[in-house]
Amino acid sequence: MNPSLHSEDAIDEGLLWPATQHSAQQREAKRQAVLSAAAQLFNERGFHATSLDDIAARLGVSKPTLYYYVKNKEEILLGCVRQGLQLMLDGIEASRRDGGTALDQLTACMQVYARIVTQDFGMCLIRVGEEQISAPNRAELRRIKAEIDHEFRRLVAQGVEEGSLAPCDPKMTAFVIGGALSWIGRWYQPGGEYSPQEVAGHCLKTLLAGVLRR
Amino acid sequence: MNPSLHSEDAIDEGLLWPATQHSAQQREAKRQAVLSAAAQLFNERGFHATSLDDIAARLGVSKPTLYYYVKNKEEILLGCVRQGLQLMLDGIEASRRDGGTALDQLTACMQVYARIVTQDFGMCLIRVGEEQISAPNRAELRRIKAEIDHEFRRLVAQGVEEGSLAPCDPKMTAFVIGGALSWIGRWYQPGGEYSPQEVAGHCLKTLLAGVLRR
Repeated sequence: MNPSLHSEDAIDEGLLWPATQHSAQQREAKRQAVLSAAAQLFNERGFHATSLDDIAARLGVSKPTLYYYVKNKEEILLGCVRQGLQLMLDGIEASRRDGGTALDQLTACMQVYARIVTQDFGMCLIRVGEEQISAPNRAELRRIKAEIDHEFRRLVAQGVEEGSLAPCDPKMTAFVIGGALSWIGRWYQPGGEYSPQEVAGHCLKTLLAGVLRR
Repeated sequence: MNPSLHSEDAIDEGLLWPATQHSAQQREAKRQAVLSAAAQLFNERGFHATSLDDIAARLGVSKPTLYYYVKNKEEILLGCVRQGLQLMLDGIEASRRDGGTALDQLTACMQVYARIVTQDFGMCLIRVGEEQISAPNRAELRRIKAEIDHEFRRLVAQGVEEGSLAPCDPKMTAFVIGGALSWIGRWYQPGGEYSPQEVAGHCLKTLLAGVLRR
């Protein structure tokens, strides 16, 4: 049996994609669909309670088909978490390009972060603990997380310098901001009482202005 | 073989407790030691990467001994999470008894919460996802979590009423406060750069006063 042909046939049977000749781009799009379905399931049931059979079933394809796109469950999780992190890096980069004061940029980054953790890959990044990922890959993920954290610290420090933010320990302030926003991903239920925009709005307001009456 | 005697002998071999006659109190103290060791391991390695053998090894006892105190790993996790929640309920109750304004009580509850999530059981409550726990037990844990959440909401609403807190949506404000404080448990490394008191102090200051310059 030709595994590549088998897989292509099987995944096309799933009616997810039209039956056309193979290309790297198409393969990547299908791999992407595998990651999306997996992220949803990990978020709903947890990483350990989700099997490759569950992922295949959600996509309407056979399990051998999945192996054409991914090696195993850890690779899938790693792909999901990488995507969540990449979305954040892209959002931060876009905020930086948009320019403005440090406070403008910090606010934009907070909005990006709050939005992404309500989406499949970002939620997966928050909900699934690092201990599911093996050491070398974990180091890579930590490096990216540190990059995001440093960007928040840099903006907080710059905000203090420009006078828009109160004097503080930028490391701890970035941590409080990141923590409160990350927690959205642990708690948020799509389709619940609040829209992602409402949650982000309330969180940003509370974090920026604080709780005490002025 | 008498499993109870076997277990008692084995756990005494571990030199954790003096060899004395059995009592319910002693049994509970030993069960407590099992939970403590387990919480530390779950926090260090994750729930799934920790085996009953690991827990037994950390206590210096044999695995059959553990079965005298706990049925399985889920029961251990449930015990750890229940303790984390009970510590919070006790702390909240103590803050209430101490009285003062709603802001005083809210601040005291925040301090309690921040402290507990840097300790073994509280950290376990934060780090281990609910999906490791089966449905009926999960419902019980959610009920207790909701109780804690409602206490924060009640204090926020009362703080707005007494004029110490800015007008807000108490549900969302309680969520931001709880989220930022919970995140400490995901990130905090005992023996790291900041003491639990420093972390709590910075978080409370940032959450109460906000980030913007007044």
